[in-house]
Amino acid sequence: MSAVPHPVDEPMLLRRDQAGVTTLTLNRPMQFNSLSQAMLETLLAEIDAIAADKSVRVVVLAGEGKAFCAGHDLKEMRANHNLGFQQELFRLCGKFMVRLTEIPQPVIARIHGIATAAGCQLVSMCDLAVASDVARFAVSGINVGLFCATPSVGLSRNMGRKEAFEMLVTGDFIDAHEAQRRGLVNRVVPLDQLDDEVARLAAAIVAKSPVAVSMGKQMFYRQLEMGMEAAYQMAAETMACNMMTNDAAEGIDAFVAKRKPEWKGC
Amino acid sequence: MSAVPHPVDEPMLLRRDQAGVTTLTLNRPMQFNSLSQAMLETLLAEIDAIAADKSVRVVVLAGEGKAFCAGHDLKEMRANHNLGFQQELFRLCGKFMVRLTEIPQPVIARIHGIATAAGCQLVSMCDLAVASDVARFAVSGINVGLFCATPSVGLSRNMGRKEAFEMLVTGDFIDAHEAQRRGLVNRVVPLDQLDDEVARLAAAIVAKSPVAVSMGKQMFYRQLEMGMEAAYQMAAETMACNMMTNDAAEGIDAFVAKRKPEWKGC
Amino acid sequence: MSAVPHPVDEPMLLRRDQAGVTTLTLNRPMQFNSLSQAMLETLLAEIDAIAADKSVRVVVLAGEGKAFCAGHDLKEMRANHNLGFQQELFRLCGKFMVRLTEIPQPVIARIHGIATAAGCQLVSMCDLAVASDVARFAVSGINVGLFCATPSVGLSRNMGRKEAFEMLVTGDFIDAHEAQRRGLVNRVVPLDQLDDEVARLAAAIVAKSPVAVSMGKQMFYRQLEMGMEAAYQMAAETMACNMMTNDAAEGIDAFVAKRKPEWKGC
Repeated sequence: MSAVPHPVDEPMLLRRDQAGVTTLTLNRPMQFNSLSQAMLETLLAEIDAIAADKSVRVVVLAGEGKAFCAGHDLKEMRANHNLGFQQELFRLCGKFMVRLTEIPQPVIARIHGIATAAGCQLVSMCDLAVASDVARFAVSGINVGLFCATPSVGLSRNMGRKEAFEMLVTGDFIDAHEAQRRGLVNRVVPLDQLDDEVARLAAAIVAKSPVAVSMGKQMFYRQLEMGMEAAYQMAAETMACNMMTNDAAEGIDAFVAKRKPEWKGC
Repeated sequence: MSAVPHPVDEPMLLRRDQAGVTTLTLNRPMQFNSLSQAMLETLLAEIDAIAADKSVRVVVLAGEGKAFCAGHDLKEMRANHNLGFQQELFRLCGKFMVRLTEIPQPVIARIHGIATAAGCQLVSMCDLAVASDVARFAVSGINVGLFCATPSVGLSRNMGRKEAFEMLVTGDFIDAHEAQRRGLVNRVVPLDQLDDEVARLAAAIVAKSPVAVSMGKQMFYRQLEMGMEAAYQMAAETMACNMMTNDAAEGIDAFVAKRKPEWKGC
Repeated sequence: MSAVPHPVDEPMLLRRDQAGVTTLTLNRPMQFNSLSQAMLETLLAEIDAIAADKSVRVVVLAGEGKAFCAGHDLKEMRANHNLGFQQELFRLCGKFMVRLTEIPQPVIARIHGIATAAGCQLVSMCDLAVASDVARFAVSGINVGLFCATPSVGLSRNMGRKEAFEMLVTGDFIDAHEAQRRGLVNRVVPLDQLDDEVARLAAAIVAKSPVAVSMGKQMFYRQLEMGMEAAYQMAAETMACNMMTNDAAEGIDAFVAKRKPEWKGC
């Protein structure tokens, strides 16, 4: 496990690369992995680097210590009480969150403990999420006079609007099973099986053609924002191009011959 | 409980103000609280007045008698069989329904009995909904040759499209638990606990900063209609502005000091 | 049951008309009813003909043999390995799928067995779906190096984005009950009750006013792609026009008189 360099002694973000799966671990356990400006900058730089790294096939986002992520760093925000700082912070946050949907590799959130405010937003913006059954989720900014506006963008695109609105105006927690029922997480397992389940899901994706996965992910979020006809036009073009790749030819030939495909990644 | 003035003897809409919670009760029990033109005009005027009233922090919409609301007044509609009347009626209805999402205060539907056609639409357009376990929901216009077009707008933004479409073409009822599973209502309780549950939810919101709640609600419905990037831009601006309010400063300071915040509402 | 003409001996699409319900049965059981170019052309021509046929009130889409539909014809796609063929194929596929939402009659998918890739897309694009409890659903193109791009358009408009994305990158199956929970199918019954359940749902729709159903369906998919205000404007116009039909007048009069309505279909 190598440390991503940053200005303080203890690395705030840990990176481990193993068999195509890159795990980024938020490492400010004493601050419940809160998303300070420096943390967001480090995450964004790392995600940008990963986007260009063909050896990375899947990204896992995890947290060190008791919490997955407790949102923004409230003390830092209060210490910089001017509009410019806040605007810059939330723009940076939004840029990082959207970037998660733009990189070619699927991103899996691994949620072992609480995910609150921007921590819950982080879960909502990952492509996939696996939670332990003791994980809990809230958008709790409203308790400190700060409506979770940016988290609401991801949250309301994961679950029903009334479900999201209730969380936003009450700050109440939901448990992992309820989060799964609503569509915020894909899978829920006991804590001691969390790493195995994340590894299983990641390995299932690593076993696919990388070119097909990345073409698909890019198309997926774009088509979500289009009308049906435009979405079909773009999806049809994507699928036709995908069919012209070596991997699709190999995949179909292997399927017909009942053998395992060997991906070339092009 | 004061009566909102209107041309007939018995007030068609009752208003009660208590501890920041304004309850509007549809009071045409013999007509199952149907939304006549006069009822819609009264509701719209009252909601407009509430929007400008800072003493109101939460609105509860309830119904007197057996039903919550059975939709439009079919007899009135048949008695005015000209296109102009119908256009005016449905425009007024749509204007009122959209207005519910525009006022600064969260609106909670309190559904004790059946909610059909525009009554079901009313539930779908409230920010939140609490139902008794004997409440039932349908968009039953199709049974009288009238597809619930305007109700479909709210319904299809609360639940899946196939679930909504089935209700629209069959007119079938769903029960309260199914309504909750689909996202049409937030909470379901036995009838004798309905008022307590509504009061609990309302009180939870009254305890929050009013400026944060109103900034949040306004932003919430706008971002739902935007692409992800535009939504994040607006949400980031909203959150930065929210951070500059006295309430956010007070809220964070109180949180850090482990004391209860005292909202100023600005 | 009459055969729709097509160039080979065995008709690839069977049509049965009974009491306002037209059942189209994919009849390439040995190919698991795969959607070859010829099959898509045949389906599109048939659906276009049905759109103009006032005797057809409901369409049921079914499959002969073991599978409902296993998606595109991979062998045909590999045998025509040029970009032009693929583009033409997926444009045709998208055109047919969108057309299902445009015809005046509701379309019910009857899923008795597996529905994979474009077969799962077909389910997602029908207005309604009834499945047997042994039916299973997957978008499995990713297993052969081909991301199910066009299926993702329908799938992500039926269920949550994380739920859809997981199916798309893993190729994993979900069972019928899970498909219902997510919103991909409306009803699930034992296989031996499937025909009865489909017939019941179809008959419920046939019993409604055809003019109300077709005005409603047309409006429904359009308003889904609009902002709330534009959606309400269009829905209000639709409802006002619907009120001016003979069927709405008859329907309301019959309701008030507590008798059964007699639809004129205008």
